[in-house]
Amino acid sequence: MTGQLIGVGVGPGDPELITLKAQRALAAADVVAYFAKAGNTSTARRIAAMHLRPGIEELPLYYPMTTEVLRHDPVYRAALHDFYQRSAAALAALLDAGRTVVVLAEGDPLFYGSYMHLHTRLAPRYPTQVIPGITGMSGCWSAVATPIAQGDDVLAVLPGTLPEAELERRISEADAAVVMKLGRNLPKVRRAIERAGRLERAIYVERGTMAEARTQPLVQKLDDVAPYFSIVLVPGWEKLP
Amino acid sequence: MTGQLIGVGVGPGDPELITLKAQRALAAADVVAYFAKAGNTSTARRIAAMHLRPGIEELPLYYPMTTEVLRHDPVYRAALHDFYQRSAAALAALLDAGRTVVVLAEGDPLFYGSYMHLHTRLAPRYPTQVIPGITGMSGCWSAVATPIAQGDDVLAVLPGTLPEAELERRISEADAAVVMKLGRNLPKVRRAIERAGRLERAIYVERGTMAEARTQPLVQKLDDVAPYFSIVLVPGWEKLP
Repeated sequence: MTGQLIGVGVGPGDPELITLKAQRALAAADVVAYFAKAGNTSTARRIAAMHLRPGIEELPLYYPMTTEVLRHDPVYRAALHDFYQRSAAALAALLDAGRTVVVLAEGDPLFYGSYMHLHTRLAPRYPTQVIPGITGMSGCWSAVATPIAQGDDVLAVLPGTLPEAELERRISEADAAVVMKLGRNLPKVRRAIERAGRLERAIYVERGTMAEARTQPLVQKLDDVAPYFSIVLVPGWEKLP
Repeated sequence: MTGQLIGVGVGPGDPELITLKAQRALAAADVVAYFAKAGNTSTARRIAAMHLRPGIEELPLYYPMTTEVLRHDPVYRAALHDFYQRSAAALAALLDAGRTVVVLAEGDPLFYGSYMHLHTRLAPRYPTQVIPGITGMSGCWSAVATPIAQGDDVLAVLPGTLPEAELERRISEADAAVVMKLGRNLPKVRRAIERAGRLERAIYVERGTMAEARTQPLVQKLDDVAPYFSIVLVPGWEKLP
């Protein structure tokens, strides 16, 4: 009897924005695994802390690098691939021993998250369940109480890493847009939104539903400093009823 | 002292996919309001049923029409506008009386939901809070345990009501896509996905995380019968690690 792998979305930051299903999975798990940058605590672990069973076995998975700068570098990619292989092997050993292993994921496990790298390696071989979570973008538009899309709106979810002209084109062609992964991309994203004629509607949100959340109209954000996990919302539904 | 308006996302269907924060809001509310088609029970009400305080006052809001066919008809639009105005007035009366009113929303309140029609009318005048929910699309890709987007993927959220050529173009240009509001649009959506060269990857999901959920590869779905709330997932992340 092998154990079960459970990918658990812990939501965008507020520990109360976790589901009852996730809470129950955490209470019943033998082992809890989570990704973290070397030398850092895991954000997902911090969000889930109050729901972890005392004495539960923990398996932190530390990324081999702490920067996103070299992401297209073949050496970096090989190291990351090796890291995911080793992480999956560590989980497989626990699953072979019949243990139930929960992997924590910020937001939703299957929406731009590292859990997927384990999922694609393990789900074909072990009983697997995925418990969805509130995405970071849902947390952000709720925190600023801003309707994002309605009716026949087309919503584009865009990484801020895209080239400026592509960002501009995609924002122009969508009714609503969410631009993620801001960080150093903020000046480029702001220019693309302005050229797409949407700067007046755009909203900058930093640290979503964390205690330290901050938000302001993008047009009023004059500096270029943004954490990697900040986002910009371009709400749709221009023709309010 | 006016009361508070709280938009509460109840998630995609499974009553356990509600957040602790939503559960707490439901337990503390004076009144619970929800939309429903005339003569039907409310799906959101059914999802939230186990979390409602016994004896809580209920305010069902019945849509004046039961069909989506006439949505561009000015008479239909005027009737709908009037309905939202009257619904907002009913809630305003309760809020003026100092009562806390929760409005249930399937999925996430600010993501293609009717709650927004009340929100835009009431949030400028009353203390308002929005509690995000698991979206229907998150529920669906989790139910089929399929990673939807990763890394620099662009995700397009598309209503199946779009013209065929536009669907084809938008699906071609995105790395991942979610097509909602299938219903009678299914044959058109299937053709658009096939012409975009993505039919082999597409997954049809019916009734998301309800008890009666059904899923199959779109290429294997030979009939054209789909409920309005079924969706098609076109997963991204083609270059698995």
